[in-house]
Amino acid sequence: MTIEIPQEKLKKALSVIEKVSSKSPTLPILNNILLSAEKNILKLSATDLEVGANFQVLGKVSNPGQIAVSGRLLFGFINLLPGGNVSLSVSSQDLIVESGKYRTKIKGLLADEFPIIPKVEEDDFVLINSINFCSSLTQVYNIPAPSTARPEISGVYFSFNKNSLVLAATDSFRLGEKNVGLIKSNLKKSINIIIPQKTAREIINIFSEEEKELKVSVSDSQIMIESFLEGSSAPNIMLTSRLIDGEYPAYSEIIPQKHITSITLPRKDFLNHIKGASLFVNKNNEVKLKINSKKGTLEILASASAGGDYSSTIEGSVLGEDVEIVFNYRFLIDGLASILSEKVLFELNGDSGPAVLKPSGGGDYLYVVMPIKSS
Amino acid sequence: MTIEIPQEKLKKALSVIEKVSSKSPTLPILNNILLSAEKNILKLSATDLEVGANFQVLGKVSNPGQIAVSGRLLFGFINLLPGGNVSLSVSSQDLIVESGKYRTKIKGLLADEFPIIPKVEEDDFVLINSINFCSSLTQVYNIPAPSTARPEISGVYFSFNKNSLVLAATDSFRLGEKNVGLIKSNLKKSINIIIPQKTAREIINIFSEEEKELKVSVSDSQIMIESFLEGSSAPNIMLTSRLIDGEYPAYSEIIPQKHITSITLPRKDFLNHIKGASLFVNKNNEVKLKINSKKGTLEILASASAGGDYSSTIEGSVLGEDVEIVFNYRFLIDGLASILSEKVLFELNGDSGPAVLKPSGGGDYLYVVMPIKSS
Repeated sequence: MTIEIPQEKLKKALSVIEKVSSKSPTLPILNNILLSAEKNILKLSATDLEVGANFQVLGKVSNPGQIAVSGRLLFGFINLLPGGNVSLSVSSQDLIVESGKYRTKIKGLLADEFPIIPKVEEDDFVLINSINFCSSLTQVYNIPAPSTARPEISGVYFSFNKNSLVLAATDSFRLGEKNVGLIKSNLKKSINIIIPQKTAREIINIFSEEEKELKVSVSDSQIMIESFLEGSSAPNIMLTSRLIDGEYPAYSEIIPQKHITSITLPRKDFLNHIKGASLFVNKNNEVKLKINSKKGTLEILASASAGGDYSSTIEGSVLGEDVEIVFNYRFLIDGLASILSEKVLFELNGDSGPAVLKPSGGGDYLYVVMPIKSS
Repeated sequence: MTIEIPQEKLKKALSVIEKVSSKSPTLPILNNILLSAEKNILKLSATDLEVGANFQVLGKVSNPGQIAVSGRLLFGFINLLPGGNVSLSVSSQDLIVESGKYRTKIKGLLADEFPIIPKVEEDDFVLINSINFCSSLTQVYNIPAPSTARPEISGVYFSFNKNSLVLAATDSFRLGEKNVGLIKSNLKKSINIIIPQKTAREIINIFSEEEKELKVSVSDSQIMIESFLEGSSAPNIMLTSRLIDGEYPAYSEIIPQKHITSITLPRKDFLNHIKGASLFVNKNNEVKLKINSKKGTLEILASASAGGDYSSTIEGSVLGEDVEIVFNYRFLIDGLASILSEKVLFELNGDSGPAVLKPSGGGDYLYVVMPIKSS
């Protein structure tokens, strides 16, 4: 293998691919990146057997070939170079990297030992805007908690319909749901899958940098997401991931269809007051909210027997009945942080029913949170 | 105690003082900040019994008094407030903090339980520029290593002379020495002390933000550093620290007075090449340097049997003999990072004598580093 490639391009590809490679010591080959040079394209691949990714960049290949090397070493070295061209070549089982007055030899492994990253070979796909997709995923991907008892809720639910994709995530205390528009879909029927939380994180890492059209294909056991080189159908980045087996709970049933009280509040203020209260919470992270419809206020109270008491008041427009309700402050903070609008609508159903946070004025996102039953 | 004070001022004072307060659970009173209100001044104090600090801010005191409260809680709360005035008052043993619609009650401890922060009552002092002092201290304070066997080299050496202060630090593998000019000194004789590394770090934390004249006084067991309110002799910040007992080694003897080889190099380039080599070092962190006077080059080599080999070359102006020498790369990186000039002068004394890094063109800083004897 012999290839010449601009340092900037190689650095960018490595920064993406190196994150996907496994850090686990049990299967050392997975700590490596596979380099494959062919037809003026250098393909970099990494996988941890759950998620795999390829990144293709243009370069001057004078000798096709393959080698697997430590991603940490190669990225660390390339990252320090001042720019210009980098030459990669293989001599016996070493990768020789040269650029200007820098030269290094990295011990390689045989390319055959590197696992094959499976492709999804389905004709059905959807096209989605990368920024739209990643920011939507960001609103829900942090909600699931690892669960071996209920693996299906440890992932993020993707429901592909005719013109939209619904994302949902829950840890059984709260639930986020987001509707994302599609650019195009040629699916013949709706498809429902669960992807691992780690995959969601990698999608955001990899595809949120540039605004592009992404192609998403799904098979029985895999999801594949691809971006393409500018003005070409040649793949630039491809990510595949296994899916989580199982049926996602029929969560729509727990989204309340009506409410007894609602209050509209400035979102950042509300978030700030909850953070203030969080300094004074007890072991159960409890903050008490008191909504007074006559005064048009939300009072926030917390009390830690050891440290002290907290109280503050925000004004908002209240409709419906007064209510006193207790929440885990962390769940409120997560919900408020995942909403992007200036004002937030908070809908409540008494002191023990599920409450809903939404961008005020509607929108395509909602966050359901269960109160703590006061003792 | 009742006082009103702008939130911004209180926040700034707390951000400084909270860092000084102890995080250790053995003496809970030390996790607290002592608030003392008197004559339109709020004094905030914290100590961990090694370092202590006072921060005085102007406020409207309507009732003098004292209370000790958790620095973490008070700072956390004040930090979140949107601005405006804050009112602090004491009711039974609680501190009531109010600002606009925010209100909190923090449990307090009796002020009598708070240790007295000792002052240095000496007439001799020096005046020094805060930025100058802190940036100089930054060049050496990281060098010492904790040592119970030789506590005197676990601190930073301060030697006050007629018109200058010499700072020195070593861990017996390398040594940094810095000369700092004084604005004024009325010392009758030179004073040599050793301050704890933690104190050096706190001095940098506290005094590097604003350019001010600092007053430094020393007693047999304490150092005191004071800044003053703009256009006034009223103290603003006062930091005191115990000194380390013992005699600092006569380190001047190990600073080489001549050299066999010297090379002048671009500092950032040199640093970058060493970082590149550091990816490939063996367990002993060894990098080999080869200086060739005929070619005017420094070659940098590293080799990790598991990962691969590294080599790169920098051009520089060499005087004297060729040399091959091995260093711990961490010591070179620390030295190069602590020099501020664009070019660096590297003076060597064969493959086993001490080497010196200096800003090229001379200056008031030098860094001595011992090579590793090649096996």
